[in-house]
Amino acid sequence: MSTPPPEIRLLSVGTALPGPPVSNADLARRFGMDELWVQWVDAFIGTRTRHLAVDLDSGEVRYSLADLGEAAGRRALDAAGVRADEVDLLVMGTATPDRLMPATVNVVADRLGIDNVPTYQLQSGCAGAFQALDVAQQMLLTGRYRHALVVGGDVIAKHYDLGLDLRSLPPGEMVNVALFGDGAGAAVLTTDPDREGPVLRKVLTRLTGLGREPGQVLEWFGPVDHVPGRTGSREDYKAIEESVPAMSVEILKELLDGLNWTDTEVDYILPPQLSQRMTARIMRELDVPTMREVTCVTETGNNANALPFQQLERVLPLLEDGDRVLGIAVESSKWIKAGFALERV
Amino acid sequence: MSTPPPEIRLLSVGTALPGPPVSNADLARRFGMDELWVQWVDAFIGTRTRHLAVDLDSGEVRYSLADLGEAAGRRALDAAGVRADEVDLLVMGTATPDRLMPATVNVVADRLGIDNVPTYQLQSGCAGAFQALDVAQQMLLTGRYRHALVVGGDVIAKHYDLGLDLRSLPPGEMVNVALFGDGAGAAVLTTDPDREGPVLRKVLTRLTGLGREPGQVLEWFGPVDHVPGRTGSREDYKAIEESVPAMSVEILKELLDGLNWTDTEVDYILPPQLSQRMTARIMRELDVPTMREVTCVTETGNNANALPFQQLERVLPLLEDGDRVLGIAVESSKWIKAGFALERV
Repeated sequence: MSTPPPEIRLLSVGTALPGPPVSNADLARRFGMDELWVQWVDAFIGTRTRHLAVDLDSGEVRYSLADLGEAAGRRALDAAGVRADEVDLLVMGTATPDRLMPATVNVVADRLGIDNVPTYQLQSGCAGAFQALDVAQQMLLTGRYRHALVVGGDVIAKHYDLGLDLRSLPPGEMVNVALFGDGAGAAVLTTDPDREGPVLRKVLTRLTGLGREPGQVLEWFGPVDHVPGRTGSREDYKAIEESVPAMSVEILKELLDGLNWTDTEVDYILPPQLSQRMTARIMRELDVPTMREVTCVTETGNNANALPFQQLERVLPLLEDGDRVLGIAVESSKWIKAGFALERV
Repeated sequence: MSTPPPEIRLLSVGTALPGPPVSNADLARRFGMDELWVQWVDAFIGTRTRHLAVDLDSGEVRYSLADLGEAAGRRALDAAGVRADEVDLLVMGTATPDRLMPATVNVVADRLGIDNVPTYQLQSGCAGAFQALDVAQQMLLTGRYRHALVVGGDVIAKHYDLGLDLRSLPPGEMVNVALFGDGAGAAVLTTDPDREGPVLRKVLTRLTGLGREPGQVLEWFGPVDHVPGRTGSREDYKAIEESVPAMSVEILKELLDGLNWTDTEVDYILPPQLSQRMTARIMRELDVPTMREVTCVTETGNNANALPFQQLERVLPLLEDGDRVLGIAVESSKWIKAGFALERV
């Protein structure tokens, strides 16, 4: 009889957000916009607050990704009752590392006291947290490790231009100031059969970018190639609006098929990192009234690889025995489908 | 009886270097240095040529990491006789992605025609190729995939300042102009028991950075935080010279212990990505006369995550049945130990 692979349980989640919530009125004041703009953000984006690593008044960057990753990681470890020296594996997902070298994951490890273990940092947009869960899950399945700490987060401060003249921008570019936020999250996974926690049934990440233009581009500059005035980011919101709801449905179906679950057996859904307005469209598209949506994008903004952990933190206390949760993300940069399935048993 | 994990074989390696070799005399001419400097590079670094993505005369960046990764990946797939649609998994390691989003791995996938599979890009300095091999190996071990394409590479063009006044720099900073190069490499791994190729016995990657200052720092800038005149990179060559030889010995011992091999049973060693001068020191430190060193750092420079593949490409044709190969790398950014072991059976 072959040994079945170990079950992987989610022991805890911890999150960290920089500073106080920044309201749409705060942004309007900072960027010299009026009440009309605030109402436009409310109606067309749906985000009411976000947390930013940069201080709006002084322009000072007060939090690094390492700061937020460390805080989230510490909270997750404390909540799991797992010590740093019990962590066998550390995996992080981010689109915005503090530096190219050292990788932020290793700075986070150092600050948490994690050492002598493999660490991996996945360069990824909205799918990074899922890729990190995937790598951790696959490595735990080989039986080589017991506890994994998975971290995700993003800090967009280096691209957040407080000097931007919003009035001169088309709505498609203006939207970024209101859409994004910063943050980090972390989760502790274990193969320990004696610990309790929902079981991670499946993680899905899959590139579907063949022949498709990127829906999102984020540049980095070196000392040599930086040209003043370049914005360094570009989104194709039309492509995102068209593709993400349909891709979300495909991810949902693929997760359900792989698990032999029906859609009415799913209790909670954690939707992709987009605006509340897009989330509402996706929920209509998914069209499963029994699934309850759990998200916080109206409060945190799209904080990319932090958001899945913020969502998990909200759904975990709601779970009763037998409850099933699906998380979904779409990385529009090169069209990556991502998802995971949790079950409380 | 439990099913043993599949054996993982290395089917092929492909590499790509940008443009013609650039000699020390070429560099001297471009940076206005004299024959004495050329001799200093020869004696103190040992690198004779390197390949650069940037054209020395025009300053034009002629190759991206995606260009080199695509070329190396195509060569590896062709050499293995594996089609793009047979690749189940794509993993890339780099310190210098072309952009933050999309990840370069996904651009490479698109160009090679790889789609509908998981892709991962590991942000890492000299250990990135090893981390990519490690992730691919672990994922192949779970039996979920058959063929993995592993890519590594780096392009330092965004940090390669042709306007640098070398005469004004201390030797520790001047050295970078001569030390580094650009390139990419790729390897095809398979669990197919019917294919021949050396068996990947072990991959090791392990952070050992607790409480240690980074030996190497590489920054990225956004549109907001870029300050003209910042160089964006920093190396502590004293720490590197002190630590890397000792860490190389520790990696060697850990690989041997894990495999129950003795050092005299190793036929070839692929030393860390450093200058030839440092490599010679490491070989003396390892002190195993029966191990033959295979590297090409005098011709390619330290091209970081490309070099392990360049070394593999050179050692593969030399292998006879029973031959054993160890690859070793040290990431000095936050002190990561990395290694792998191959055996032709």
